[in-house]
Amino acid sequence: MSKQFKYYWEDFPVGKVIEFGGYTLTQDEIVRFAKEFDPQPFHIDEEAAKHSMFGGIIASGWHTCALCMRMTCDAYLLETASLGSPGLENLRWLKPVRPGDTLRVRCVTLEARPMESKPHIGLVRNRWEVLNQHNEEVMQMEGYGMLRRRSH
Amino acid sequence: MSKQFKYYWEDFPVGKVIEFGGYTLTQDEIVRFAKEFDPQPFHIDEEAAKHSMFGGIIASGWHTCALCMRMTCDAYLLETASLGSPGLENLRWLKPVRPGDTLRVRCVTLEARPMESKPHIGLVRNRWEVLNQHNEEVMQMEGYGMLRRRSH
Repeated sequence: MSKQFKYYWEDFPVGKVIEFGGYTLTQDEIVRFAKEFDPQPFHIDEEAAKHSMFGGIIASGWHTCALCMRMTCDAYLLETASLGSPGLENLRWLKPVRPGDTLRVRCVTLEARPMESKPHIGLVRNRWEVLNQHNEEVMQMEGYGMLRRRSH
Repeated sequence: MSKQFKYYWEDFPVGKVIEFGGYTLTQDEIVRFAKEFDPQPFHIDEEAAKHSMFGGIIASGWHTCALCMRMTCDAYLLETASLGSPGLENLRWLKPVRPGDTLRVRCVTLEARPMESKPHIGLVRNRWEVLNQHNEEVMQMEGYGMLRRRSH
């Protein structure tokens, strides 16, 4: 027996836009993530960051990716019949993310089609735009997701 | 006065291959990362993971990305006159990463050219291949980096 989910492939038609998130990062979180995964001076050292081209501590781009994932999980993915993702395209870090910034996500479905080889699965291609509190886009990426179809 | 680095743009000519890393993930680390950033059942819940298509706990794809970044930092990036990255292409999660897997990285320079608008900076395009202890490629991505030139 398959678990029942709230959302299936049919719930993400082309052109669908979902906005969600609203997560405020602290400097402590930025430094903690970067010390573990991306210990470049402008992510972990306030003094070095001040003298870098960024003028202060900025978040690792991978931290922004991870937070985008978390906001996506909380908004709909944990209630979606998702079968994972084979990958991403066009990941762009557009603006620095700084301590105190509040991030939200706008997710747009660009493409949706059933898989020919597996008719119970559908593919979607989404664009995630991560925006800060000034409505500036700080990151963008496009990714494929495999979802079960409700009707199959 | 600019800080002196060990590596500059000139040190990454087209065709250069660097192999590094060798990091063994524990299940605790996988679960801890995923609880914070990607709490899908097959990343955080052993029982649910057993009954998923993966047959057991697997690491979040973002965790693999973050570990690839850390291995890159340790291998050369912290000693490189790096000016950051505008983004990535063709990120592919090719095989599951499981508790106990040992990951290493093969980094290949695909393209290297000076920036026309800023002659003291060079661009490189690298492909990172993340391999496990069975020599299977678990992840691949291509990314751009901006580096200072030694001679400018």
